[in-house]
Amino acid sequence: MQFRGANILSIAQFERADIESLFTTADLLAPYARREKRTRVLDGAILGNMFFEPSTRTRVSFGSAFNILGGYVRETTGLESSSLSKGESLYDTARVLSGYSDVICMRHPEIGSVAEFAQGSRVPVINGGDGPNEHPTQALLDLYTIRNELRSFNRSVDGLRIAMIGDLKHGRTVHSLSKLLCLFSNVEVRLVSPQPLQLPAALVEQMRAANVKVTITDKLEEGIHAVDIVYSTRIQEERFADQAEANLYRGQFRLNQSIYTAHCEPNTVIMHPLPRDSRAEANELDIDLDRNPNLAIFRQADNGVIVRMALFVKVLDVEAELKKSEQPVIWYTQRNNTP
Amino acid sequence: MQFRGANILSIAQFERADIESLFTTADLLAPYARREKRTRVLDGAILGNMFFEPSTRTRVSFGSAFNILGGYVRETTGLESSSLSKGESLYDTARVLSGYSDVICMRHPEIGSVAEFAQGSRVPVINGGDGPNEHPTQALLDLYTIRNELRSFNRSVDGLRIAMIGDLKHGRTVHSLSKLLCLFSNVEVRLVSPQPLQLPAALVEQMRAANVKVTITDKLEEGIHAVDIVYSTRIQEERFADQAEANLYRGQFRLNQSIYTAHCEPNTVIMHPLPRDSRAEANELDIDLDRNPNLAIFRQADNGVIVRMALFVKVLDVEAELKKSEQPVIWYTQRNNTP
Amino acid sequence: MQFRGANILSIAQFERADIESLFTTADLLAPYARREKRTRVLDGAILGNMFFEPSTRTRVSFGSAFNILGGYVRETTGLESSSLSKGESLYDTARVLSGYSDVICMRHPEIGSVAEFAQGSRVPVINGGDGPNEHPTQALLDLYTIRNELRSFNRSVDGLRIAMIGDLKHGRTVHSLSKLLCLFSNVEVRLVSPQPLQLPAALVEQMRAANVKVTITDKLEEGIHAVDIVYSTRIQEERFADQAEANLYRGQFRLNQSIYTAHCEPNTVIMHPLPRDSRAEANELDIDLDRNPNLAIFRQADNGVIVRMALFVKVLDVEAELKKSEQPVIWYTQRNNTP
Repeated sequence: MQFRGANILSIAQFERADIESLFTTADLLAPYARREKRTRVLDGAILGNMFFEPSTRTRVSFGSAFNILGGYVRETTGLESSSLSKGESLYDTARVLSGYSDVICMRHPEIGSVAEFAQGSRVPVINGGDGPNEHPTQALLDLYTIRNELRSFNRSVDGLRIAMIGDLKHGRTVHSLSKLLCLFSNVEVRLVSPQPLQLPAALVEQMRAANVKVTITDKLEEGIHAVDIVYSTRIQEERFADQAEANLYRGQFRLNQSIYTAHCEPNTVIMHPLPRDSRAEANELDIDLDRNPNLAIFRQADNGVIVRMALFVKVLDVEAELKKSEQPVIWYTQRNNTP
Repeated sequence: MQFRGANILSIAQFERADIESLFTTADLLAPYARREKRTRVLDGAILGNMFFEPSTRTRVSFGSAFNILGGYVRETTGLESSSLSKGESLYDTARVLSGYSDVICMRHPEIGSVAEFAQGSRVPVINGGDGPNEHPTQALLDLYTIRNELRSFNRSVDGLRIAMIGDLKHGRTVHSLSKLLCLFSNVEVRLVSPQPLQLPAALVEQMRAANVKVTITDKLEEGIHAVDIVYSTRIQEERFADQAEANLYRGQFRLNQSIYTAHCEPNTVIMHPLPRDSRAEANELDIDLDRNPNLAIFRQADNGVIVRMALFVKVLDVEAELKKSEQPVIWYTQRNNTP
Repeated sequence: MQFRGANILSIAQFERADIESLFTTADLLAPYARREKRTRVLDGAILGNMFFEPSTRTRVSFGSAFNILGGYVRETTGLESSSLSKGESLYDTARVLSGYSDVICMRHPEIGSVAEFAQGSRVPVINGGDGPNEHPTQALLDLYTIRNELRSFNRSVDGLRIAMIGDLKHGRTVHSLSKLLCLFSNVEVRLVSPQPLQLPAALVEQMRAANVKVTITDKLEEGIHAVDIVYSTRIQEERFADQAEANLYRGQFRLNQSIYTAHCEPNTVIMHPLPRDSRAEANELDIDLDRNPNLAIFRQADNGVIVRMALFVKVLDVEAELKKSEQPVIWYTQRNNTP
C-alpha cells in the first residue's frame, strides 16, 4: 500500500512488504524512542488524539510517539462532547475535527465507527481501537516484538512456533495477530484455552487456508512445549455475562518460572498484551518471571511507541527529513536501559 | 479598542474598525492554518485552555490555533477542581491560574463568570462561552465567513441580505451575530422561526435602531427568497421544558437541494453554527446539500481556527514578528483542500 | 542527596544543603517563570503528568513549569484507566507508563502509592501528593516563600517566628512544613487551633527534639503577636465526619486588616496554601487584606511553578545547559507584575 496520506484502519490493509517496510522504519526510529538521539522532524504538526473511549496507555503511547518526533498533541478523552447526542453524523464530526490537526488517532466504542469517521476526515486517520473490532497498532507492535525477539536468536517470523494462551474467544489482540501471521510461511500456532473460550472457527480456517499449522488444546504443558513464543492473555472478564462465569476460567493457565523451566525451551520468549492480572485468583504470569530475561512484556509495551512513531513517519512522509533535524539529548535519561 | 493585552469578553467591545483590523490579520494567518506555510511566533508561550464546561470543538479549535502559532497548551476540562466548591472566589482562582500561562481561554456555565474571572487574572482572558450569555469568537467567525463568502462574489457585508432560520429565541449565535450586523450599513435581515421561537424583541429593536431592515416570518420560502446568506440553526432541545415541546418545532424548516434550487438565488451561501441535527425528525440541512459548493458550513468551522489565531496574535501583539519565524511545511498535508 | 535521576517522594529526603541548593537553582529560574527571559533547555523532553486524583492547580503548575523549560507534557486526569481495576499491579503500570516519558509527576489517592509506583518506574518520579501522606513540592514552595519574604527584610529562615493557624490536625501542608523547619536553627512556632484540631503530638515532639520552640494556644491574638509569618489554613471540612462538626470550627480564626493592624508587626507576612474559604461563615483571610503588600498568598502560588522548575532542572540535570538555550520573550506579557 501507499502509506503517504493513508488511513490505517485495519490489519487487512497490510501486505507482507508493507509490514517489512514499516518495521525497517521502526528500527530507524528506535534510538529516538530510547533517547539515544533526538529529532524534531514533525515540529509544528498537530496530532488530534481523539479517545472517545478512554484508554490511558494507548492514548499516551500515541501522544508520546508524536511528541518524540517533535509534534504537538491536542487531546479528547471520553464522550465529553454531546455533538453526537445532538444528532450530528460522524461524517460532520470528522469534517470539523479534521480541520484542527494534521493526523488523527481515534478510539471509539462502536464497531466500524473509526472507518466511518475516516470517510469525512480531511487528514489521515489511525484506528486506535473500534470496540471489539480492530486495534491494528496493537497487532503491529506484537508482530514487531516477535520479529525482534526472534532476530536476537538469528531467527525470523518465517518458521515461527507460537503458543497463544487464555481467553482466545474474546481477546482482540490474538485475533489480529492470527491474521497477520497468515502473511508468513511455515508458521505453527498452538491454541491453548478452555473449550468455551477457543479462537473463533473462522480465524482457525483463515490460518489453515494460509498454510499455518494450527493445533488446538486445553493442556498448558502441551501448548508451551517446543515453541519460540508463549503469548499469554488475560481472561477478559468484562466480556462475560457475569463475574461467576469469568471466574470459571481465571487461573486455569498460570505460567511461572518452575513451569517455564520444566516445559519451555531455554530461549522461549514470553509475551502478553498487558495488563496482566496479578491477583491471586488469576495470576496468568507470575512475578517470579520478572527476573527471566526472556520475559518480553515490557519490551513489547515499549515497542508500541516505536511502531506508532513509524506509522506517523510513513503516513506523514517525513522519513527523508529525519536525519536533518537530529539533535543530541542533553537531559538525564536512563530510558535506554531496556527492561 | 487596543487589542494588546486586552480581555476579549463580549462582542460589544468591537467597533467596526476593530472588526476590520482583526479580519485583516486573519487573512494573513489563513495560509498558516491551511498548512501552506508555518510559523513559530508564539514558541514558548503558554495558553491556559480552561473549559469548566466541556466543549470538544471550541476547546480543540482554540488549542490548535495556539499550536499552529507555535505555543504550548495547558488544559482543564470540566469542573474537576473542587477549589470553587471549597469556597474559593473566582477572583482568587484567577489570580492563581493566571500565574500558569500567558493567555487564558475560558468557558464556564455561569453568565458573567468569565468577566469576573478576568478581573482577577494577570494575563488576558478570552471568553469561550459563559453559559447562555456570550460566545464572542463564534460571532466573529460567523461574520468572517459571511465577509469571505461575499467577497468571492465581489460583495461586502454592507448591503448584506441574510435569512436567519430556526430557534432564534435560544440560539446564542444568532443573538451575537445580530448585534455585530448593527455595525454595517444597508443590511437586511429576515427572521424565519415558529412564532414562539422568535428572536427576542430587544434584539429586533437594537437592529432597527441601527437601520437594519428586519422582516419577521414563519414561512421558509418567503425567508430564503433573494438573500445572500441562509443561516440555519438547530432547535436547541436542551433549552426546552421537555422533549415533547422541542419536538413541536423540530423539522419545521428543512432545507434541501430541491428547495434551494426552487427558492434561492444561484449563489446563496448556506451557513450553520454546527452541529446540524441529521436525524430524520429534524434534518434542518439535508446531506444532499453537501455537494452544493455554496454550502459553507465546514469552511465556517475552519474559519474558527483562523479567527482565534488572529485574536491571539493581536492580544499578544506578535504580528510584526510573524514573518521572521516562518518555515516550510515538510510533512504530508491535504488541508489546503478547502471543504 | 544526589538530585540527578532521583525520585522526589518525601520531604524526609532533604537535608539543609539540598534545600539551599534547590533554592539557589530556583532563584536562577525565577526570571524565566516571570517571562523576563526564555529558555528551551528541555526541548524534546516529555513529562508524564499522571493525576490519578484530580487537582487542577497542582497539575497545571507542574505542566506549566515543564513547558516554561521547553518540554512537552502528556497528561492523565482521574482514574480513567481501568488497568488497575483489571488486576494490574502498580509495578507493572509503572514499568509501562515510564516508557512514555522522561520524568513523571504523579498524584494518587492512596498513601504510599507514589513510592510503590517509583519502584517500577524507569524514569524519575515526583510525588504530587499521595492522599493524606506527602505533598513535598507544596512544602518546598512554602519554605521557598518564607525564605524569600524574609530575605526582603534581610532576614533568614534561621531565627524565624511563625504562627500556624487553623485546622492543624488535618492540614497536610502544615505537617510537612513543620518537618522542614526542623532543619533550621532558632525557629519559634506558634500553633493556633481549636483544641480538637491541634497539630499531631508526634510532630510537636519532632520539632522540640530539633530545638524548635513550640507554643500551643487557641487564642488568635496571642498567636499572631510578634511573628514574622502568619500561616493561615482552611478548615478541611472534607475530612470531618459531617458538615455539622466542621461548622463548629469554621470562622474561629478570622484575620482581617483591622486585626492585623492591631496585633501584627508592620512587616508580618501572611501566607495560606489556598484555596482560602471566602464564604461568610469561614472567611479565614478577609479580602480587605488583598491591598496589604505583606499578603503573600499569590506570590506563594507563583513560587510553586518556580520550585517545580527547579526540581525538573536538578533531577534531569540541565542547569549547565540553561544559558545556552536562552532566547528573548517577544509576546505581550505582564506576568512580571508580581501580585
